[in-house]
Amino acid sequence: MDYYSRQISNLIEELSSLPGIGSKSAQRLAFHILNMPLEHVEKLSSAILNARQKVKYCKTCYTLTDEEYCPICRNSDRDHKTIMVVEDTRDLAAYEKTNKYEGVYHVLHGAISPMLGIGPNDIRLKELMQRLQEEVGEVIIATNSSLEGETTAMYISKLIKPAGIKVTRIASGVPVGGDLEYIDEMTLLRALEGRTEL
Amino acid sequence: MDYYSRQISNLIEELSSLPGIGSKSAQRLAFHILNMPLEHVEKLSSAILNARQKVKYCKTCYTLTDEEYCPICRNSDRDHKTIMVVEDTRDLAAYEKTNKYEGVYHVLHGAISPMLGIGPNDIRLKELMQRLQEEVGEVIIATNSSLEGETTAMYISKLIKPAGIKVTRIASGVPVGGDLEYIDEMTLLRALEGRTEL
Repeated sequence: MDYYSRQISNLIEELSSLPGIGSKSAQRLAFHILNMPLEHVEKLSSAILNARQKVKYCKTCYTLTDEEYCPICRNSDRDHKTIMVVEDTRDLAAYEKTNKYEGVYHVLHGAISPMLGIGPNDIRLKELMQRLQEEVGEVIIATNSSLEGETTAMYISKLIKPAGIKVTRIASGVPVGGDLEYIDEMTLLRALEGRTEL
Repeated sequence: MDYYSRQISNLIEELSSLPGIGSKSAQRLAFHILNMPLEHVEKLSSAILNARQKVKYCKTCYTLTDEEYCPICRNSDRDHKTIMVVEDTRDLAAYEKTNKYEGVYHVLHGAISPMLGIGPNDIRLKELMQRLQEEVGEVIIATNSSLEGETTAMYISKLIKPAGIKVTRIASGVPVGGDLEYIDEMTLLRALEGRTEL
């Protein structure tokens, strides 16, 4: 990239190291940034650094937050006896967008994957068990519907059930609006197994 | 986005203000950044700010650079009597990637567009005319093959030709590997008009 000068090449290189940003997008972004008002670029640059510097784990649910406790754990209107277990903070956000879930969360930061060498001690499972020392009504396991997510769900369920805590798993099936024709066989079978009476 | 804490929301907002980055990508990028090593985030953040702060126009060809003269204009191995006129720095980069063009460039930073109210004085045309005071062998117009690019090409050609300078336009036609079946009619007509003897 010696047709770009050093700072521009450096910017393009940094941007293209981000996931989902190829060299073409990185160039487009770089030139957009070079044409942005300086004060906006300053805001972007410091938003990146600030978020990274301030981010930590919520002391209760381990979601990423910039305070000791996240806004959800601090909210006394939520049902703190219902805990939804998710793989990461984005999954939490996905359920929050439904505006219907009133319980709290527990973020594992990963899923058990023997393939990748990720075991139960590599995710925030010990922390979940500690929370269950207090009174809990239900643990909803909302890990992904992948091999790793299912393995993790099974593992947690076996760990918690003996303690007499209600453990549920979110349903797996045909997505709303999904056309059966385009749905994979595994999902079709899951949807059949999980059928409910009308 | 009150399920994310302030710094994280702010980061997602800043990222989604960039072109081609929707709210999903912004979230993915944000969480990637939050999980990156701090020193790498510092490099990204300062690459953005530094490039924007240091960027200026090359005093000869007006490409974006962080020095007074860009690497191409400073290179004495290049043919400084052949000037390729392009709309922006990315177009210059596209031709540089071919590794075959040995002349220099002139970056207009736009194209004439009566629709958008962009006239000849809004692009770096005066600066091109000044360069042509010195001895020039050929001006190759490589503006885009769009209405604006063609308008600009015609305008420049009318301006320069009377001065006795050789002006050429890059060819328009079927892209290499292009299947005629999928090529639009305008391009097919251009390819026909521009046919060369075998």
